[in-house]
Amino acid sequence: MAPTPAREPRRRGRPGYDQDAVLAAAVRLFNERGYDYTSMFDIAVALGITKSSVYHHISGKEQLLQMAMDRALDGLFEAADEVRALDVPARERLEQLIRRSVLVLSERFEYVTVLLRVRGNTEAEQHALARRREFDVVVTELVKQAQAEGGVRPDIEPATAARLLLGMVNSLTEWYRPRPGGADAIADAVTALAFEGLHTISPGRTPPDRH
Amino acid sequence: MAPTPAREPRRRGRPGYDQDAVLAAAVRLFNERGYDYTSMFDIAVALGITKSSVYHHISGKEQLLQMAMDRALDGLFEAADEVRALDVPARERLEQLIRRSVLVLSERFEYVTVLLRVRGNTEAEQHALARRREFDVVVTELVKQAQAEGGVRPDIEPATAARLLLGMVNSLTEWYRPRPGGADAIADAVTALAFEGLHTISPGRTPPDRH
Repeated sequence: MAPTPAREPRRRGRPGYDQDAVLAAAVRLFNERGYDYTSMFDIAVALGITKSSVYHHISGKEQLLQMAMDRALDGLFEAADEVRALDVPARERLEQLIRRSVLVLSERFEYVTVLLRVRGNTEAEQHALARRREFDVVVTELVKQAQAEGGVRPDIEPATAARLLLGMVNSLTEWYRPRPGGADAIADAVTALAFEGLHTISPGRTPPDRH
Repeated sequence: MAPTPAREPRRRGRPGYDQDAVLAAAVRLFNERGYDYTSMFDIAVALGITKSSVYHHISGKEQLLQMAMDRALDGLFEAADEVRALDVPARERLEQLIRRSVLVLSERFEYVTVLLRVRGNTEAEQHALARRREFDVVVTELVKQAQAEGGVRPDIEPATAARLLLGMVNSLTEWYRPRPGGADAIADAVTALAFEGLHTISPGRTPPDRH
């Protein structure tokens, strides 16, 4: 399968390019040393510009965090919208949403990493956590619908299934490093494990005995 | 299935009970507000004792972090040892190890949560990360062996499968809250999803057509 082309990050405000560059540098530092241990001065140094030049584009660290979290969450909700429009059974939409979540994570790796480390210390972080929970609900509802249609096994609680699926996807920020063409391969592995399982033949779910 | 009885945490040093109480209070604070934002004074206040009483049992915050990480890692490696001794195919040992990892996480929830948030800022943290990687290797080797025996599908890279399995297990610290009897139910859900998959019938892996 051809690798999905990386999406162009949306540009905000007038001095688009510079704001994106500031954001990218900030997010790298947030992930390396932690949000609390990154100052606007550090961000300026990383970019080789003055602190006041940074403030020309950005109101402060909080805005950078907010933009990073939005970029991750917007990607996930765009994927949810695309999947909602597909005219296929819920089980396939669920599988597509998990696959696309892996691709969003791979394309927006640093932004998703920032998002997943947020613990809710500020109002903006609380808002981001609320949007994450909203996304959990989207996945939970798809599991429910797929169970009702008979496409997903009924013996796993929908919210638990959703959390385990997203837990597996989100774990990528801990060990996966994006590389060209790698996203589809890892999405294949995630969906194969999640939907077909690791067993060579799934015991107890083979078709009825023919005798 | 009856819930596995909680293991009695091993006691260290002479004033065992008090050291355990200090550790439990510290770990709770580390998880609530972060290790960096917890002082020995905070721990003393939480226990209703003086800071010098805390120092009677513990050399400092670093020792508490070390003990917390060890308690989590010791649980995982004890599970790996028990599973190694089982006289069953590698696929079943793998499934047992995933199940037991869920139970360890549930029994030692606060300790595993501390462990998983560590980023390697000190030598002790680096050592804990190395032991985590060692555990990844144990799981990877089991996947390899199970693939060689034909018990696990061969089309997922062993290290990737191990990481996805543990990613799913570790995600529990983010959303699961231990409750009596809950650990076995969640272990069932994890192993069902991981080994059998969410599909009602696994496509492409049903027995050969009878025509």
